[in-house]
Amino acid sequence: MDIDDLAQRIQSGDRRALARAITLVESGRADHREMAAELLDRLAGSGRQALRIGLSGTPGVGKSTFIESFGLMLTGQGLRVAVLAVDPSSARSGGSILGDKTRMERLSRDRNAFIRPSPSQAQMGGVARRTREAIALCEAAGFDVVLIETVGVGQSETMVAEMSDLFVLLLAPAGGDELQGVKRGIMEIADLILVNKADGALKETATRTCADYAGALRLLRKRAQDPEGFPKAITVSALEEHGLERAWDEMQALADWRREHGHFDARRAEQARGWFEEEVHLGLLARLERDPALKARMAELGAAVAEGRAAPARAAAELLAALEGR
Amino acid sequence: MDIDDLAQRIQSGDRRALARAITLVESGRADHREMAAELLDRLAGSGRQALRIGLSGTPGVGKSTFIESFGLMLTGQGLRVAVLAVDPSSARSGGSILGDKTRMERLSRDRNAFIRPSPSQAQMGGVARRTREAIALCEAAGFDVVLIETVGVGQSETMVAEMSDLFVLLLAPAGGDELQGVKRGIMEIADLILVNKADGALKETATRTCADYAGALRLLRKRAQDPEGFPKAITVSALEEHGLERAWDEMQALADWRREHGHFDARRAEQARGWFEEEVHLGLLARLERDPALKARMAELGAAVAEGRAAPARAAAELLAALEGR
Repeated sequence: MDIDDLAQRIQSGDRRALARAITLVESGRADHREMAAELLDRLAGSGRQALRIGLSGTPGVGKSTFIESFGLMLTGQGLRVAVLAVDPSSARSGGSILGDKTRMERLSRDRNAFIRPSPSQAQMGGVARRTREAIALCEAAGFDVVLIETVGVGQSETMVAEMSDLFVLLLAPAGGDELQGVKRGIMEIADLILVNKADGALKETATRTCADYAGALRLLRKRAQDPEGFPKAITVSALEEHGLERAWDEMQALADWRREHGHFDARRAEQARGWFEEEVHLGLLARLERDPALKARMAELGAAVAEGRAAPARAAAELLAALEGR
Repeated sequence: MDIDDLAQRIQSGDRRALARAITLVESGRADHREMAAELLDRLAGSGRQALRIGLSGTPGVGKSTFIESFGLMLTGQGLRVAVLAVDPSSARSGGSILGDKTRMERLSRDRNAFIRPSPSQAQMGGVARRTREAIALCEAAGFDVVLIETVGVGQSETMVAEMSDLFVLLLAPAGGDELQGVKRGIMEIADLILVNKADGALKETATRTCADYAGALRLLRKRAQDPEGFPKAITVSALEEHGLERAWDEMQALADWRREHGHFDARRAEQARGWFEEEVHLGLLARLERDPALKARMAELGAAVAEGRAAPARAAAELLAALEGR
């Protein structure tokens, strides 16, 4: 594979080249990892920046319909939109979200949109790396907006929030006790809550639900990187394509405010630094893993610590001494 | 220092030996770290288990008064209580919480209580390690309850929650807008919210505040490791020593339920495994830090990544290649 050629084609907006490059970053093979690292390094500093929007919503909330309507509204404004799916559960179930592109038939045919399903075999660590590398590829390919979609499984929302500029939570109208369905910690990371299905018979319930969430959000302390009024809860109808422009306006207003106050770039720099440290960490661990005897010793020591038979610091020292001895 | 002797004296409940051992784990000196690791390893598997209770509350909420009243109630029941303070801000301010033991005059004179102020010079990573090692020492010394007190600074609450069996949030009565003072994410990790100062003129406000928090807690999804009704909010008065027994009953009920359902031990095992991996990580990083050239290269590469000039994976690969070359 000619990395130079691939890099150029990605930057010229070639969608097949982009798809191939994402397949490359998804691979766990050592030679593929090396090529992926080289490609990403070549594309770093392209100066292109998309707005990275993390989006979460439980099944049944109308997420596909929302992404389709919202994506088409954006492409209708002349913007290029990439949609990436993150679904760590598909490692177990074998399925994948966005696996069936017919769920977003119109958007997938739009030449200003790029939709990429979640791969079906990665573990969480791999999902994080693959996703942030795929985001970097989409940015280099000149997309204006990268939507990172996730289902509410395990730590996937926190992970997606940590690689996004904004985090949006899509919720369904619900009464009283059902509000409990919002997972602990998720409300805290949302910049914008969209209560979907504000149409037909559910319109009134959606309005009430939205007020409840707005009330709950007011109980939380304002973050330094947020302007007055954020985080915010508003109603939308993906089906009737209502409220989508307001949602986009709110996202832009928040992003603009953060840009003006330096929070946007500061956050990105902090994220990048964190990824670098994580890569160093993964690389050091990979060195341990490559040695079967060390790997076995690490598993033994980990079990001893978990069972309270050994203290963490001493067990770690023993493992590192074994590493020095190699 | 005779580690064997120190270990024996700690296990026999010698408070001066315990204080000396905590000073040892607080030290950053390489030889002290080695001795600390050996001591902790010798004490591992003592089979002694305290209930580890994380406690957070903003200044002015009456935390010292609460700890004194609550601690005395526990020692009055024949229980031995250790209080450890975690204050990462003291690294900057030079001050320390619990620095003035006169804040808890009666408890500090109680021979079944042990109070340890926060050291004034540690960084966050060091604070985490020092605190979990101090907890392990207090457990080996046979304390029944270890209270880990923190102020609401930065990530200290999450850190304390991650090394506790239960996390308790102490809040003051407040009206309407003041409820916003609860930091994002903190409500999510609380097992029990105690609204203090439910006495005198504030009694009614405290009751109303408590109902507000209870309502907010109901908006959050129940965790698998919680019985019905948790997380819970109740009122207490540390001053009038009212509601303290109920608070203790609630903590025990939750701990018992988690023990019966296996969540208690599972959580501890997971915590211990996490600490081991963190120690391995810190040990590997220490190897990089020990080499001035590698350390300088890591700083350069980190800056390049933060500024978008280099991709994280490639920068990490370069650093690891430099490490291999040594």
